[in-house]
Amino acid sequence: MRKIYMDHTAGAPVDRRVVSAMHPFLEATYGNPSSAHSFAQEAKEGLKDARSSVASLIRAEESEEIFFTSCATESNNWAIRGFAARNHDKGRHIITTTIEHMSVINVCKHLTKQGFKISYLPVDKHGIVDLKALETELTDETILVSIMYANGEIGTIEPIKEASEIVHARNACLHVDATAAIGQFPIDVRKAGADLMTLSSNEIGGPKGVGALYSKKGTRLQPLIFGGGQERGMRSGTENVPGIVGMGKAASLTNLEIGDRITKLKRMRDRLIKGLLSNIPYSFLNGHPSQRLPNNVAVRFSFIEGESMLLNLDMAGVAASSGSACTAKTLEPSHVLRAIGLKHEEAHGSLLFTLGTQNAEEDVDYVVDLLPDIVKRLRALSPLTPKELTGSV
Amino acid sequence: MRKIYMDHTAGAPVDRRVVSAMHPFLEATYGNPSSAHSFAQEAKEGLKDARSSVASLIRAEESEEIFFTSCATESNNWAIRGFAARNHDKGRHIITTTIEHMSVINVCKHLTKQGFKISYLPVDKHGIVDLKALETELTDETILVSIMYANGEIGTIEPIKEASEIVHARNACLHVDATAAIGQFPIDVRKAGADLMTLSSNEIGGPKGVGALYSKKGTRLQPLIFGGGQERGMRSGTENVPGIVGMGKAASLTNLEIGDRITKLKRMRDRLIKGLLSNIPYSFLNGHPSQRLPNNVAVRFSFIEGESMLLNLDMAGVAASSGSACTAKTLEPSHVLRAIGLKHEEAHGSLLFTLGTQNAEEDVDYVVDLLPDIVKRLRALSPLTPKELTGSV
Repeated sequence: MRKIYMDHTAGAPVDRRVVSAMHPFLEATYGNPSSAHSFAQEAKEGLKDARSSVASLIRAEESEEIFFTSCATESNNWAIRGFAARNHDKGRHIITTTIEHMSVINVCKHLTKQGFKISYLPVDKHGIVDLKALETELTDETILVSIMYANGEIGTIEPIKEASEIVHARNACLHVDATAAIGQFPIDVRKAGADLMTLSSNEIGGPKGVGALYSKKGTRLQPLIFGGGQERGMRSGTENVPGIVGMGKAASLTNLEIGDRITKLKRMRDRLIKGLLSNIPYSFLNGHPSQRLPNNVAVRFSFIEGESMLLNLDMAGVAASSGSACTAKTLEPSHVLRAIGLKHEEAHGSLLFTLGTQNAEEDVDYVVDLLPDIVKRLRALSPLTPKELTGSV
Repeated sequence: MRKIYMDHTAGAPVDRRVVSAMHPFLEATYGNPSSAHSFAQEAKEGLKDARSSVASLIRAEESEEIFFTSCATESNNWAIRGFAARNHDKGRHIITTTIEHMSVINVCKHLTKQGFKISYLPVDKHGIVDLKALETELTDETILVSIMYANGEIGTIEPIKEASEIVHARNACLHVDATAAIGQFPIDVRKAGADLMTLSSNEIGGPKGVGALYSKKGTRLQPLIFGGGQERGMRSGTENVPGIVGMGKAASLTNLEIGDRITKLKRMRDRLIKGLLSNIPYSFLNGHPSQRLPNNVAVRFSFIEGESMLLNLDMAGVAASSGSACTAKTLEPSHVLRAIGLKHEEAHGSLLFTLGTQNAEEDVDYVVDLLPDIVKRLRALSPLTPKELTGSV
């Protein structure tokens, strides 16, 4: 059976060239970069090159503004809690949005137990954060604002530059979770005005188990993990050298190839959206129609459940998602879909396809051929479907 | 030039069979284990098998007592801080030792800022923790005791079973940092009586960037990293599937081969210790003569500096260490060597060789041939060397 993978935001293959770059650091160059001998020197060089490649990808001023972590979730935890721990003398108010990843939302919940007040900015029906509300919520007590660069579940890209100007005018700092955004469009961290930025490796073709945090020079941050003082005292623990080297290689490849990737992804994305919306009645796009990640096809179909569609797609060899993989375990509708104003049943009828460069136009056409029949079949069984639709089965 | 690597505690090669086991999870089985489709199923199976292999290696009662982390440092942070956060209603006293890894010591320092009192147990000249002092220090306020299973810098294996009986008699819990111990001798976590145990991957031939924490069923622990609720809500962040699969494979190989490994390592260790101590005057063993890790050769030489010996060894192709890689960045003598009563200059004259199964008897003989000349040369240059020794150069 043909196997088509369209769940790249949840997990992506590691680029073959990245695997090759990692290999020597698994079997041959296994020194600890903190050691004094020449075996360590090679590991140290590997770290240095990787740091510089990741810095280049987001146009950071200095390599030393990049700190490697174990994943984007750790980076989000560190950015917000580490900043809160070092800056609460200035205030205990943090602003975020209603559509952040659970690692931001649950960290904020945790901080309320430590006396922090959290404000959640609303978003419009396309998922664009309300900048007027940001201006209103900012007070002299506000130390940090955390807004994602793009939402992986609905594809919407947020107006980060505009947000950073508002935040900095009130002397607060801006954390940007760029997990879903990295590699999807060119990022210039300085132009964007982020003080802290979370970066993922797997989203750009690097391995799982590694991530990074950009921390602008001068940003006051307490470590999240204490110990031997690796990463210039900011993130202890023996460095995941092969993983970091892999992330670095993925960053440098992304830097070179991002233009071609975007072109390819956008073409497939638009073909898939158009194919589904025009072939399936009562189908809608989730998220912003144009301010949208090139790999993101988030759609919903009235009267039926995303889970049943997923199961049918899976049986036909197509891997997609009903939302964030991180919330796949619960049966609750996604907080993101609720935040853009979808009713319970609308949220439940959602499907998410995230494309990768390994996908081909034929994959798109296969799904466009396949899904209308699945939807028809499920609607015929659904008590919610209006008569005129079941009649047409 | 011949290259001999004897710094395995700092960083070890990944077993070729482990690399092969990881490979499919980098390039082919890249699904997110939290997703619903069949791509995810294979990743989920990989995690499950790895968890069961690691549980078997330490004879845990249930696989679900194993939680994967990004490294032993994270596990130590989590065990102590996560336990403190959930159990401070019972008391705010924690006991540890003067020879723990910096990730334990710096976490304890951090906790003092949150109102915890920390007691540091002394060790004897061989590095064995003082169990009488443990009995004395335990109070009704003591919630946790953290003692390492073995010290990687001096090789000494601690009397964990005896310690756990004392700790449990006072209704406290025991955390054991088994980073340096795992794979060096058979560990039975239940017989040892640990409630929490830190495990490393690289020390058993698995990759860097992954570790684990054993948490006995019923132990109250707060997560260190919040988010999407992976690892049954205890450690968020997309799982490092290839890394975890690698650690699992390394654990199952260790389980099978530990007997042969110990025999081989002990033979080389004893040959190296005997060769060095009998060929170099004013040389001494650091750590316990018999309660000792099979891979550990920690020695010291009077009148000269470890750093100069390291440099000379490195130029001759031999990678060793002057102590913990995590403290290699500072010029301070190791806190471990000070804790066993060595004077400043004795600590500075220390060298650490940690062997691996890739080493051969010829490597040992090469070092035994090489080092006496290096020591002689350096002593001839040292103003501290007594006349009768320099005369013999």
